[in-house]
Amino acid sequence: MWGDLLPIGRDRATGGYRRSPFGSAERECAAWYLEEAERRHLDVATDGQGNAVAWWRPPEPADRLAASSRGDSPRGILVGSHLDSVDNGGAYDGPLGIVSSFAAIDRLRERGVVPSRPVGVALFVEEEGSRFGVACLGSRLATGVISPDEAGRLRDREGTYLVDAMSAAGHEPRLGRSSLLDDVEAFVELHVEQGRDLVDRGRAVAVASTSWAHGRWRFDFTGEPNHAGATRMEDRHDPMLTYAMTALAANKQARLSGTRATFGRVAVEPNATNAIPERVSAWLDARGEDARAVASLVDAVTRQGEERAGRDGTALDVTEESASPTVAFDAALARRLAQILDEAPVIATGAGHDAGILQLAGIRSAMLFVRNPTGISHSPEESASMDDCLEGVEALTTALEALAT
Amino acid sequence: MWGDLLPIGRDRATGGYRRSPFGSAERECAAWYLEEAERRHLDVATDGQGNAVAWWRPPEPADRLAASSRGDSPRGILVGSHLDSVDNGGAYDGPLGIVSSFAAIDRLRERGVVPSRPVGVALFVEEEGSRFGVACLGSRLATGVISPDEAGRLRDREGTYLVDAMSAAGHEPRLGRSSLLDDVEAFVELHVEQGRDLVDRGRAVAVASTSWAHGRWRFDFTGEPNHAGATRMEDRHDPMLTYAMTALAANKQARLSGTRATFGRVAVEPNATNAIPERVSAWLDARGEDARAVASLVDAVTRQGEERAGRDGTALDVTEESASPTVAFDAALARRLAQILDEAPVIATGAGHDAGILQLAGIRSAMLFVRNPTGISHSPEESASMDDCLEGVEALTTALEALAT
Repeated sequence: MWGDLLPIGRDRATGGYRRSPFGSAERECAAWYLEEAERRHLDVATDGQGNAVAWWRPPEPADRLAASSRGDSPRGILVGSHLDSVDNGGAYDGPLGIVSSFAAIDRLRERGVVPSRPVGVALFVEEEGSRFGVACLGSRLATGVISPDEAGRLRDREGTYLVDAMSAAGHEPRLGRSSLLDDVEAFVELHVEQGRDLVDRGRAVAVASTSWAHGRWRFDFTGEPNHAGATRMEDRHDPMLTYAMTALAANKQARLSGTRATFGRVAVEPNATNAIPERVSAWLDARGEDARAVASLVDAVTRQGEERAGRDGTALDVTEESASPTVAFDAALARRLAQILDEAPVIATGAGHDAGILQLAGIRSAMLFVRNPTGISHSPEESASMDDCLEGVEALTTALEALAT
Repeated sequence: MWGDLLPIGRDRATGGYRRSPFGSAERECAAWYLEEAERRHLDVATDGQGNAVAWWRPPEPADRLAASSRGDSPRGILVGSHLDSVDNGGAYDGPLGIVSSFAAIDRLRERGVVPSRPVGVALFVEEEGSRFGVACLGSRLATGVISPDEAGRLRDREGTYLVDAMSAAGHEPRLGRSSLLDDVEAFVELHVEQGRDLVDRGRAVAVASTSWAHGRWRFDFTGEPNHAGATRMEDRHDPMLTYAMTALAANKQARLSGTRATFGRVAVEPNATNAIPERVSAWLDARGEDARAVASLVDAVTRQGEERAGRDGTALDVTEESASPTVAFDAALARRLAQILDEAPVIATGAGHDAGILQLAGIRSAMLFVRNPTGISHSPEESASMDDCLEGVEALTTALEALAT
């Protein structure tokens, strides 16, 4: 499976992946998912928005059939992840969870295990938020955590509306919550670790405790566009300078407060070498242990940006584009998984995940992390060893067997 | 004429102009130029690269014909400017010179003036360097100041080669010097002022003395791409921070040294909100009274960037993309123009112009500046009053009459 997926959307020069949601590489990945599901005779349900669940519904014994006819058939256990990537991202972030899920089903079948509940492999779309700016967009839509109205207003950088991008990719969208996840009892998402915690602990697999609060804020710095050669330094109102100081302030503030702040995306107008910019827009990714820590980080950065704007004669306008509270994954579920996985460590993560959205939406969720030797993610250098990946599959198989039989 | 040109390439929302070289709006402007030339029965010569001269060749009297048959016909006086704009630029930068040139010919004809030399209206392509990164590219090609080899390597941001962009726009390029400017004795370029010198002096028109030395340097900051949420602040090698500090240092250094430094263009990879960038490329526009001042500015900024890169664990690589020495316009010509224009002030400019390139290439050149009430340029707010524009036309007419009869 890994060999089939590897070439899709890979940049030959960098080795990184470009699987933008609803783009051709991501559609190819989705087609691969459907083939793998079909090969295993799984029933695929979709929500018309790019999300899907491939269900393994074992034949029901006679006593269950009776229960089922009374309408109380058992709810399913969901595994799975996502297949989209950030631009020039790594091979593992997302796909490792999907591949491991199919592999875990194969293991159970090889061992003759017949689950007493349906087992589904979920595929969530636009997890990275790389195209429409909202992370975990697919799972937010599927669970109703984002409203159809709000989603209807989303556009990509070219101005294409979300719903049009979905249609262009062959979906038949009706934005918002569907019945796709109605029969889900619990969700376990396996994911490559995005950090070095497991390296430090010398373990291959961990269970997630919490996912930090996080969000995205757009900082619009506006100044006075002018000629770069003919304008005296003292006559300038250059928003690039206000931005530069704000980026440095964000870094310092995050270090001081034990939070995380990143300006990784910038758009400049007119973005010409010989023109003082009219506007610099920059996106702050802010994370912290809880929502209060994040709010206080964003406040501090905004305040320092505004102070500098006052000195530069520029203006700063800050817009929240998305915000997620701290997610505590289901504690009982995490404890149980840690127990059956040889007392796997239970660790927090600074990254957001679809499992966090499902947990927020009331579906008991857990995550398994697979060691990443470099700790690097969202980069071609993201990696995981073959041994650790197989240990991840084994852990997911064990988890599924415990939860679904 | 002004009314015909105004709507072409104007952004309705901002009022700014987008006349990118070899793009549709700029082609429309070039077609307008050809119509205006034809209406006046001027002979248009082109160099296949987008540069053109529309010649007014008055009928030669009998004694001149004899001289002409001996091969020493008088060389021409060139006026004109450019029609391309920076992205979201102003209406005057370039077009004011072309429109005033045609209007000056009309004035001379109305007055029955018959020049003893040909008078040409030049149209130079890609003056702003907004698409291929080299300012005054058209006049550099026409004069051979840039080599065909170097020009052949130029690509725009989409990777399109210069020569292909020319062909797509209907030209038949053979890159490099042609005979287009062979018969030019002197060049006078009228241009809107890009600064507030004339406002301070209370005058409508000035003559240029020198054009500052200037150039463009690409600063490539490379770091370690990683996940914005999961990477500890202390584990990062974030090139955005190195860039931010360098942008602030450039501003400070320019203020201290009486030079000008601008970072107006930035490109980030992968430019994703939740990814620490792998690379930030930023272009430094540096100007100063002489080449030494510019070199020392660029050195100081580079040194401070490298120091910060050392602390951030990132790398900085600096590439010169273009550099122009100080241009002293022809002193005798400037003195003469100032004299016949009611002792017009003679002022320096921080901007580069085609007239500077022609001067460098050995063609006696001069510039006339028309007052800009805001001093703002490369912006929709660039302007000039109707009265001042007419005074500019009058000045150019006077100059032409003095030089061409």
